[in-house]
Amino acid sequence: MPGDKIRIGIVAPGKRLEEDVARRLVAFAAQAFPNVELQIHPQCFLSHGHFAGPDEARAKAFLEVANDPRFDALWWARGGYGAGRVAPLVLPHLSDVAKKKLYLGYSDAGFILAGLYRAGFPFVAHGPVARDITRDGGEAAVARALAFLSARDPATLEPGLSAAVPAVAFNLCVLSHIVGTDLMPDLSGHVLMLEEVSEELYRIDRSLCHIAAAPSVRGCAGIRLGRVSDILPNDPDFGATPEEIVRHWCGVSGIAWLGAADIGHDVENRIVPFGRWPWPKG
Amino acid sequence: MPGDKIRIGIVAPGKRLEEDVARRLVAFAAQAFPNVELQIHPQCFLSHGHFAGPDEARAKAFLEVANDPRFDALWWARGGYGAGRVAPLVLPHLSDVAKKKLYLGYSDAGFILAGLYRAGFPFVAHGPVARDITRDGGEAAVARALAFLSARDPATLEPGLSAAVPAVAFNLCVLSHIVGTDLMPDLSGHVLMLEEVSEELYRIDRSLCHIAAAPSVRGCAGIRLGRVSDILPNDPDFGATPEEIVRHWCGVSGIAWLGAADIGHDVENRIVPFGRWPWPKG
Repeated sequence: MPGDKIRIGIVAPGKRLEEDVARRLVAFAAQAFPNVELQIHPQCFLSHGHFAGPDEARAKAFLEVANDPRFDALWWARGGYGAGRVAPLVLPHLSDVAKKKLYLGYSDAGFILAGLYRAGFPFVAHGPVARDITRDGGEAAVARALAFLSARDPATLEPGLSAAVPAVAFNLCVLSHIVGTDLMPDLSGHVLMLEEVSEELYRIDRSLCHIAAAPSVRGCAGIRLGRVSDILPNDPDFGATPEEIVRHWCGVSGIAWLGAADIGHDVENRIVPFGRWPWPKG
Repeated sequence: MPGDKIRIGIVAPGKRLEEDVARRLVAFAAQAFPNVELQIHPQCFLSHGHFAGPDEARAKAFLEVANDPRFDALWWARGGYGAGRVAPLVLPHLSDVAKKKLYLGYSDAGFILAGLYRAGFPFVAHGPVARDITRDGGEAAVARALAFLSARDPATLEPGLSAAVPAVAFNLCVLSHIVGTDLMPDLSGHVLMLEEVSEELYRIDRSLCHIAAAPSVRGCAGIRLGRVSDILPNDPDFGATPEEIVRHWCGVSGIAWLGAADIGHDVENRIVPFGRWPWPKG
């Protein structure tokens, strides 16, 4: 009802969130988005080797937020690897309630975003995570996420979206680890936006070699390339830029090259709603 | 006929071979294997960014050796990434002559070894490459490869092979980049041996998360783990050893854990003939 707060549950399917970052996030949201109530699930602070708690704890937290009608949205605390382990523990147990809410994350989150989209969830989006507040100028990224999560503000969106063509966005390496599994959505007819961070160029080429050979990706409407940042040294010099690499694989596989996308592991990372925008009424 | 030399053609589908390494290799083979004639294709010395020449040149060299009846075997100069780009240029153009010869390589070679095995080539094997001679004690690895290439010497084989169950061997990360593509063989009923080098543990876990979700891998007879060497630091400490990681994924996916395998990025790397050993008469 009018005046009700938008309730956003934050979980960490991958790496853990630091307590001081959580405090900073809550303070920023309270000041900048008074209509939003952030609930950071205590699972975010668990620690279990690489992960924010054991697989079962991360899956339980995800389900508690996703299946609880009091939450309007589920927001990723951060990425970092772990969502792929949680996806098969989560996806079969999502209720009709879960299908009504909005899911936002990127990078490692792609494992679950892919599975949700494949399962027909209508409100799945690629965009900043809570921990992006720690980046230089990161409040802009978090404000963008909160403006989308709370009001689906069109000013937050990747500017090249078309109402005529559905879109998805993925971290390239994560998408390569989804190809050939039950998480992989049918990307036929979709614009596929890709971004990458902290990889050697030979690995970027190898990931594209892989996804461009996947039948579902070959049927996409075209590829747009977001930022490829913090590229690690290649031995020897690879001999091509990220854009040249993507254009090579578009040529080899008959996929249309559609130019740049305004996404990446940075504070400019714009929102990409999966599917066709505008979304149906939720 | 008796007295004829065994002719082995060496090509480089990935990175280039250094001329001094080639000279050392030829000298060693002439002394230790007088019945072998090594022919190092000049393509091995080409340089094109990351690769030993452009894709077309690497594919042409591969086809020249594979389709030439004067060669008994095709041996990988080295790995390093590039075979996946060449595979679709090579596989449709292999003749019946190509089907009669022996193919030996590992690591990046797995892209083409997979495609050859899937296409029904009977003599495909995972084992040392020519450039392993540069490792400390590397002459032992090259001698093992040459003893297998020239005489199929059973002393060179991975000791756990069983006549009852077919086997394959792959670099884990390379296999992850084959899943979901036309190169992926059906591994149902096969013992799958895996090895890895120079990766963080989270990447190793992520590759296993990927392959264990692939239907074809789930049907395998079990996994054996070779050496996982030069493990890069994980931030934070991952919390499990490579064997524990593999056993976790075997448990999750219902794959049998079959213990260690004597393969790896090192001079001890034993030969794994794809399929059922002994092979049919060639």
